[in-house]
Amino acid sequence: MRIAVDVMGGERGPLEVVKGSVEAAREYKVEIALVGREDIIQQQLAKCRPENSKLSIVNAVDVVNPHEPPAQAIRHKPDSSIVVGMNLLKGGDVSAFVSAGHSGAMVAAALFILGRIKGIERPALGAIFPTPSDPVLVLDIGANADCRPSFLIQFAEIGSIYMEKVLGVHQPRVGLLSCGEEEIKGNRLVRESHQLFKKSKLNFVGNVEGKDIHRGVADVIVTDGFTGNIVLKTSEGFSEAFFDMLEQALASRPHFRVVSLLLDPALRAFARRLDYSEYGGAPLLGVNGNVVIAHGRSQAKAIKNAVGLAKRAVEQGMPQAITGGSYGQTG
Amino acid sequence: MRIAVDVMGGERGPLEVVKGSVEAAREYKVEIALVGREDIIQQQLAKCRPENSKLSIVNAVDVVNPHEPPAQAIRHKPDSSIVVGMNLLKGGDVSAFVSAGHSGAMVAAALFILGRIKGIERPALGAIFPTPSDPVLVLDIGANADCRPSFLIQFAEIGSIYMEKVLGVHQPRVGLLSCGEEEIKGNRLVRESHQLFKKSKLNFVGNVEGKDIHRGVADVIVTDGFTGNIVLKTSEGFSEAFFDMLEQALASRPHFRVVSLLLDPALRAFARRLDYSEYGGAPLLGVNGNVVIAHGRSQAKAIKNAVGLAKRAVEQGMPQAITGGSYGQTG
Repeated sequence: MRIAVDVMGGERGPLEVVKGSVEAAREYKVEIALVGREDIIQQQLAKCRPENSKLSIVNAVDVVNPHEPPAQAIRHKPDSSIVVGMNLLKGGDVSAFVSAGHSGAMVAAALFILGRIKGIERPALGAIFPTPSDPVLVLDIGANADCRPSFLIQFAEIGSIYMEKVLGVHQPRVGLLSCGEEEIKGNRLVRESHQLFKKSKLNFVGNVEGKDIHRGVADVIVTDGFTGNIVLKTSEGFSEAFFDMLEQALASRPHFRVVSLLLDPALRAFARRLDYSEYGGAPLLGVNGNVVIAHGRSQAKAIKNAVGLAKRAVEQGMPQAITGGSYGQTG
Repeated sequence: MRIAVDVMGGERGPLEVVKGSVEAAREYKVEIALVGREDIIQQQLAKCRPENSKLSIVNAVDVVNPHEPPAQAIRHKPDSSIVVGMNLLKGGDVSAFVSAGHSGAMVAAALFILGRIKGIERPALGAIFPTPSDPVLVLDIGANADCRPSFLIQFAEIGSIYMEKVLGVHQPRVGLLSCGEEEIKGNRLVRESHQLFKKSKLNFVGNVEGKDIHRGVADVIVTDGFTGNIVLKTSEGFSEAFFDMLEQALASRPHFRVVSLLLDPALRAFARRLDYSEYGGAPLLGVNGNVVIAHGRSQAKAIKNAVGLAKRAVEQGMPQAITGGSYGQTG
């Protein structure tokens, strides 16, 4: 299996991406096609130990910058790593494409180049949140800021297929994110969607609240991309503030500093369970290809795990498993 | 000053509310009118030490239950503690009303009984979030699930007045919660609102993201009540999951348990800085009266602090300071 990785994406620079790719090739026994400026990739490879890793380089001289309008970037930069990588996937040269670059441009490129799966109105970006028990897939986390009920029910369907196939969850429980558990609670979108969900064949457990996301009450949590993005970013920000304050509290008195040193392994174990890099990236669901968008701040480990996630999706027959569904008929 | 407290509201039962009220009366030198079933209040008072606290009882024989539809509850239960307390405020018998009861019913009662401030389209519920630096007011956190841009700009205006008057923040910085910093980012509501905000006299700092909420980049963060509620609940749920996992990590090995004991004061100090009960409650802004809705799970300390917040609002001339604004003209 060959998986393309965008070396030019990611806020941490190309070295982290190359490192993660080298580790992924070794650990998952896949070939990685490193997509980006060849000279830069060669430089970074020299700093890693690429022995025993199957790697190839696909030259892409251009880069999509963080603040470029997505559609424009895709149209005007055919030689960017995002467009080149997506074309490799489209052409069947690779089985999946992983990038920590501009997520809007990745979604746009996937739509333009791969296209939507037949019957799917909009693709959705799904984030896998760790919880104290099992992981939960929240989607959409940013591909569609404005949604209709028909989008949300499809997000639920494709999210359920993904959790069943890729994470092995039998009959995933689906929750609809709202501001209260009762079905009359929610904004217009959610109240209308609730009625569609109730009538569907989904394993629908009803509305879930923000406090339920990290409690494992559902395997798939559906929301519009605006709310989903804010939930994701709030959790990340909270986590950072939490660790900052914990460190401040620990540093505040001399004997706490000693405690802090002793505690370090426990804190690490604990942080790992909340760490997005455990899953490495967000699958883009509903397009004709396996695309994983890694977090912009991904370090080597997150890149490696994103490749692992992509590999599992390929092995489990994604996105064909979605293609097999009959969409647009549930409501 | 006399402040009414709803003894029948709150998931922790009447004792916590009475305890908090007794402490508040003592600490803030205010008189507390305890509203609820007289027999229950007398029973609970017998368990506290009400000496040196100015307390009175206002009998209210009925209770609004957690899942009752708000408007219906208000109409059919004129003798409920929520309606009785709101009428005390309306009649000028008290200067503020605090309840940890059914927040939907509190909003409905405030609207029906106190009415909106002239020119204000919708009142907003504001949550004060602790951050590592200064607290931030996020509104609306649940009074209006569906919003229009004209609502959001008023939330910004009344939120700014509140932060300036009650929390003493000079020219509060206002952020608009969105899924990206650029003004083209957001759902339709936010993109349209952004244009109104830019043209306003607010100290507008632009869009802020979920990760910014706990970072103190703005003093007032404006959002619709659906998103605001989910942000609030996500943060709470995250905080709980965090502490659970930290405890698990600490309990996992014998020597961590010792560390845990040593660490306890630091953890407490740290938890306090993230704890909603530090501010005690959410002010309902835009109605003709000082209403604070305390968290349903409020313990005595949160109730006490909610009374303190209400007292400060009264002293600082709320809600008259809002009445003085000219609304509906900004856009």
